[in-house]
Amino acid sequence: MRALLLDMDGVLYQGEKAIAGAREAIIWCHDQHIPHLFLTNTTSRPRRVLVEKLGAMGITVSDGEILTPPVAAAGWLQQHIDGPVALFVPERTHEEFSSITVADKDTEEVAAVVIGDLGEAWDFARYNHAFRLLMQNPRALLIALGLTRYWQAEDGPRLDVGPFVKGLEYATEREAVVMGKPAAPFFEAALAQLDVRMEDTVMIGDDIRGDIDGAQKAGIRAVLVRTGKYRPSDLEQDVKPFAVIDSIADLPAWWSQLSRSSQG
Amino acid sequence: MRALLLDMDGVLYQGEKAIAGAREAIIWCHDQHIPHLFLTNTTSRPRRVLVEKLGAMGITVSDGEILTPPVAAAGWLQQHIDGPVALFVPERTHEEFSSITVADKDTEEVAAVVIGDLGEAWDFARYNHAFRLLMQNPRALLIALGLTRYWQAEDGPRLDVGPFVKGLEYATEREAVVMGKPAAPFFEAALAQLDVRMEDTVMIGDDIRGDIDGAQKAGIRAVLVRTGKYRPSDLEQDVKPFAVIDSIADLPAWWSQLSRSSQG
Repeated sequence: MRALLLDMDGVLYQGEKAIAGAREAIIWCHDQHIPHLFLTNTTSRPRRVLVEKLGAMGITVSDGEILTPPVAAAGWLQQHIDGPVALFVPERTHEEFSSITVADKDTEEVAAVVIGDLGEAWDFARYNHAFRLLMQNPRALLIALGLTRYWQAEDGPRLDVGPFVKGLEYATEREAVVMGKPAAPFFEAALAQLDVRMEDTVMIGDDIRGDIDGAQKAGIRAVLVRTGKYRPSDLEQDVKPFAVIDSIADLPAWWSQLSRSSQG
Repeated sequence: MRALLLDMDGVLYQGEKAIAGAREAIIWCHDQHIPHLFLTNTTSRPRRVLVEKLGAMGITVSDGEILTPPVAAAGWLQQHIDGPVALFVPERTHEEFSSITVADKDTEEVAAVVIGDLGEAWDFARYNHAFRLLMQNPRALLIALGLTRYWQAEDGPRLDVGPFVKGLEYATEREAVVMGKPAAPFFEAALAQLDVRMEDTVMIGDDIRGDIDGAQKAGIRAVLVRTGKYRPSDLEQDVKPFAVIDSIADLPAWWSQLSRSSQG
């Protein structure tokens, strides 16, 4: 085992509070020079906001250690697409797409259409514009920054990116390339960025579906932590994690023991 | 055979022009007192507009002979639901729902949420409101006025009702009751309104999927006309119409011959 992929929310912190031992586990990970990435489905904030949030909890990470759907999409598009890309993502995540050619609003020929969580910025004209670009460019790819159904805002649940992607998939009769857990292309983008093999990598997460099942379907062993959204009933399902640990605090000891046993 | 269901667009008329013999076939249908309904997926116009359109072509029908998704939905809801119904349909089709209790915009407890083709009137707040009503009322039914993907407006394709329904189905993890061809509840609403049995009924249509396959899946024999969107390749598919006639002009002769042979 060489590399680590780690979920953030529920593994490193809960709400605005670090999980006990998370800071030390990340220091250990840095000290051991273990190739790693933090994987999050957050599309509404750029990486530097996440870095600041972690910093405020005493956990030091850099932008480059975080893989968000926009970053994974930009990397994936750079490898797979030749031509301008139309972005339907919040203004504040545009910076993550600086490595690719972004279509301006009048561009009619595009190679891909990227759909993120635009929230209140969605209206019929904008949604229909994404649809028309896909219709006008039959070979253009539909890229989804995750398939999250909704999120809990202060005033109630709010539709996230998923329903808008599903609507476009139906309208255009094509399937989205999904950048976000649990979809395989997202995990593959992580492995590509670290330049490691799936069989040498372990995913750490609190979400039996998004983290554990997703990683394992991409061929990556996954370890469930008993923090965040973990519930004992998670272990009664058809998904079987490679291991279960109480929290990220136990990761260094678990890793060392496994390394010893695999060498022995 | 006792009763007839007929598609309108492509069977009675094409664009603004009646199909030759359509007027005479409808007069024959009236003279013979054959129980019948015209089935259309049109949700953007009330029935009286369709009646006027046919009238201008010399074809006389009344409101009551036309079954649209809103009318079918209102009838279906009257039978199946007890409680207010939230409408997300164009203002001009509200009149079709006069037989049921319609929720006002502040009603939080609803028994059903009806989704139509709101077009430009969709924005995030409105779409999210439909979503929240479904989340707040776990037993509320999601009723779709068809699942049409898009329609051709003068300036290009426009998203129709289908993509918005698919988004809500995904977000709420529930399945819509679809009122519109090819969904069975729509054909069942037609049979209920005519008070006839499926085995005594024939559907006439030009759409191998929406009309022919839809009717046959609801247990109704279906006759394909070689007008409207008919293409010879339709007959090379897995769907086998009960019969194929050149146009609705041939319906009276076909019907008489069949009646004779079934009596003989």
